[in-house]
Amino acid sequence: MTKTCAIIGGGVIGGGWAARFLLAGWDVNVFDPDPQAERKIGEVLSNARHALPMLYDIALPPEGKLTFCATMAEAVGSADWIQESVPERLDIKHRVFADIQAHAPDTALIGSSTSGFKPSELQEGAKNPAQIFVAHPFNPVYLLPLIELVPSVQTSQDVQTRAAQVLRDIGMYPLLVRKEIDAHIADRFLEAVWREGLWLIKDGIATTEEIDNAIRYGFGLRWAQMGLFETYRIAGGEAGMAHFISQFGPCLQWPWTKLMDVPELTDELTQMIADQSDAQSGQHSIRELERIRDNNLVAMMRALKQQDQAAGALLNTHEAALRAAPVAPCQTMRSVARRIPVDWTDYNGHMNESRYGQVMTDAADEVMRIIGADADYIAAGHSYFTAETTIKFLAETHAGEDIYVDSQITLAEGKKLRLAHEMRRTSDDTLLASCDQFLLHVSLETRKSCPPVGAVAETLAKL
Amino acid sequence: MTKTCAIIGGGVIGGGWAARFLLAGWDVNVFDPDPQAERKIGEVLSNARHALPMLYDIALPPEGKLTFCATMAEAVGSADWIQESVPERLDIKHRVFADIQAHAPDTALIGSSTSGFKPSELQEGAKNPAQIFVAHPFNPVYLLPLIELVPSVQTSQDVQTRAAQVLRDIGMYPLLVRKEIDAHIADRFLEAVWREGLWLIKDGIATTEEIDNAIRYGFGLRWAQMGLFETYRIAGGEAGMAHFISQFGPCLQWPWTKLMDVPELTDELTQMIADQSDAQSGQHSIRELERIRDNNLVAMMRALKQQDQAAGALLNTHEAALRAAPVAPCQTMRSVARRIPVDWTDYNGHMNESRYGQVMTDAADEVMRIIGADADYIAAGHSYFTAETTIKFLAETHAGEDIYVDSQITLAEGKKLRLAHEMRRTSDDTLLASCDQFLLHVSLETRKSCPPVGAVAETLAKL
Repeated sequence: MTKTCAIIGGGVIGGGWAARFLLAGWDVNVFDPDPQAERKIGEVLSNARHALPMLYDIALPPEGKLTFCATMAEAVGSADWIQESVPERLDIKHRVFADIQAHAPDTALIGSSTSGFKPSELQEGAKNPAQIFVAHPFNPVYLLPLIELVPSVQTSQDVQTRAAQVLRDIGMYPLLVRKEIDAHIADRFLEAVWREGLWLIKDGIATTEEIDNAIRYGFGLRWAQMGLFETYRIAGGEAGMAHFISQFGPCLQWPWTKLMDVPELTDELTQMIADQSDAQSGQHSIRELERIRDNNLVAMMRALKQQDQAAGALLNTHEAALRAAPVAPCQTMRSVARRIPVDWTDYNGHMNESRYGQVMTDAADEVMRIIGADADYIAAGHSYFTAETTIKFLAETHAGEDIYVDSQITLAEGKKLRLAHEMRRTSDDTLLASCDQFLLHVSLETRKSCPPVGAVAETLAKL
Repeated sequence: MTKTCAIIGGGVIGGGWAARFLLAGWDVNVFDPDPQAERKIGEVLSNARHALPMLYDIALPPEGKLTFCATMAEAVGSADWIQESVPERLDIKHRVFADIQAHAPDTALIGSSTSGFKPSELQEGAKNPAQIFVAHPFNPVYLLPLIELVPSVQTSQDVQTRAAQVLRDIGMYPLLVRKEIDAHIADRFLEAVWREGLWLIKDGIATTEEIDNAIRYGFGLRWAQMGLFETYRIAGGEAGMAHFISQFGPCLQWPWTKLMDVPELTDELTQMIADQSDAQSGQHSIRELERIRDNNLVAMMRALKQQDQAAGALLNTHEAALRAAPVAPCQTMRSVARRIPVDWTDYNGHMNESRYGQVMTDAADEVMRIIGADADYIAAGHSYFTAETTIKFLAETHAGEDIYVDSQITLAEGKKLRLAHEMRRTSDDTLLASCDQFLLHVSLETRKSCPPVGAVAETLAKL
């Protein structure tokens, strides 16, 4: 049965949550008295619909139904997950939680997007504190997988377990914060870096652009894949982590740390930062910057996916869970259904020639899976190798378009197998490319060609 | 003429510098009295030779000559760049600089890899302070482009300008730090984050693995491509950067910042971190972790390269500078020479089928450049479109192997053009794949096929 999520408070964060649930196939109810909420959430959804499906090499489930609700009761009445993303004021949050719990099922999971408050603070005066926890996301919520899942001692164990499972089901990574603390974990780091950044600007050491370059050309790249401690473990080398700490630790007492006071955010400092930021990024609108950021994130996360590391390993796990069982072998098989991602296209957004080949290779892989020449079959010592591929390029296709491939077995004779693939645009069935692929069945032991064996041979005989 | 770099002090940082210069075609002299220096530098070079060439889609210049020198005089006597990477003690550095300047040319550029010292401190008592500056790299030096280039008031303007140019020539990014300061810029941030990380562990809030996940699944991905301020500019939305500061700024006064004292690095805390790090990463040796890190960085940086953003934009600029002028049109043209990168292969390191197609497409692009159907020709309204490609797969190839393609024009008749490509392994000329490619010349205005025009028509007629 389709599940329902209630988004309480729109904006960039609420919109990001709405996108995550909708694109995972949940129905989403939004409640936000702001007359701009529908527009604001629509903008985030538009970004998310462009970017999120590109992370996957399969089609996502059909999108759920989005409803803007006039009352809290309507929004949360039958919700399985309720996400609060209202302004960061404890009195407002207390009123909202009271309103939510007056109308929500007792079994609903109630998460808060708060950056700073502890769950025990949110639970003060609540009818049922056990339902409430912090689920703190990171912008852009529709791409970054991290959720800090923070329970208090009053949050029930069942709620924690179910919440973590829902987050994994929709493709996110619940980081369970075992001990509640102001600002949870990640924002503690962001706060420390922000403070240092303000000092560097105030003291005229570096501009916003120089600071950004110091980050993205150096440790930013390191942290996108390994974080802080694994990076330093490598720096410590064979001598180990304890050795590294004894080397680097004393620096903490050096004068680097003398600038820990908080710089006063005068109008002058604020204006200096705003001016430097305009000089750095003012040539792009916020919409353009969002698109650049999202395309970069999609391309980097797909690169990590190909390496099966860090955020990419999370994507592979999620995709494996989403991947449907193969269809039954038949004459014409739907072998590919997917979105063209930004890393497959040139600067004009046209799909590169070689990626037509990629789609055809993926189609052949799926045919192999369908006829039983799958990972187990390969592990047992046999496989099909492609000997020759001919592709006819018939029409252009673009980043963000959905395509599918239908594949046919046109010859299966002894060791020989011939496949014909047709790649079409999903929206209008336009034929984009066709491919004739000739494969040879080989023994992985002798590296020589030979006829297929067992179930694969039987399946091909039937077809 | 081949230029010479002297590496004073080996180890991971000195070895990284050696790799950068060697792989850019410089000769490198190493001076390090440590009997382990040759082994240590050899290990770094082995990593660098695997990873660095994968960042580029062309062949790098021939590697320079590596010499281990017995004396300082031999190492620096004819050096154009001298890089000091000895231990972080000012008295040692002063002795080393005196020794360097006793034997080096007056025109040599003398950089220090120091993380913490200011150039004015390094220059104390130096014979020629004007030659000396800080050039602070980031590990792995052979992949991360950032160099903090820090002059003091005594460093000559000419030295600064030449140093920045050398760094750009070898593919690095010199970030000029205009005002010297303890720990320069990036390490100020690293220090702040390290301090917060130690507190989180000491207080039992999170383990090393949880902290790493909080970074790499969240803001680490953001910072790999945009840094701090551009990310926050987007978060501020249309209301602008000043609005963002007024929203987020007050948090600086919240209790998040109360933990700025330095935690004492007791044996107990050190052991706790080492144990957690073992639990997180102990299943991998340091060599394995280095390989995982390098493959991730190569794949992500290539993803950014494809987007022409952040560190990838730097790579594109450097590659364009390295790219040779096209050869003269002739019967058989060398159209590709390159290393197979890790993002082109499956988990077993075999190159994916579709990347054979990528190589053939790149070969066709180079043939187009050679016959004059280049970017200018396309801008003027004509281009060749691929109509059909047939690839024969003849042998497997692997990440890290060098390959080349020779291309022939087999038909040039009116609007029709037919190319034959042969892809071979560089080490033994084994034929890996062959490709027959049929292209049609089109007018980009009418989107219809038509004969080529101007210089392209003439060149093809001659061939």
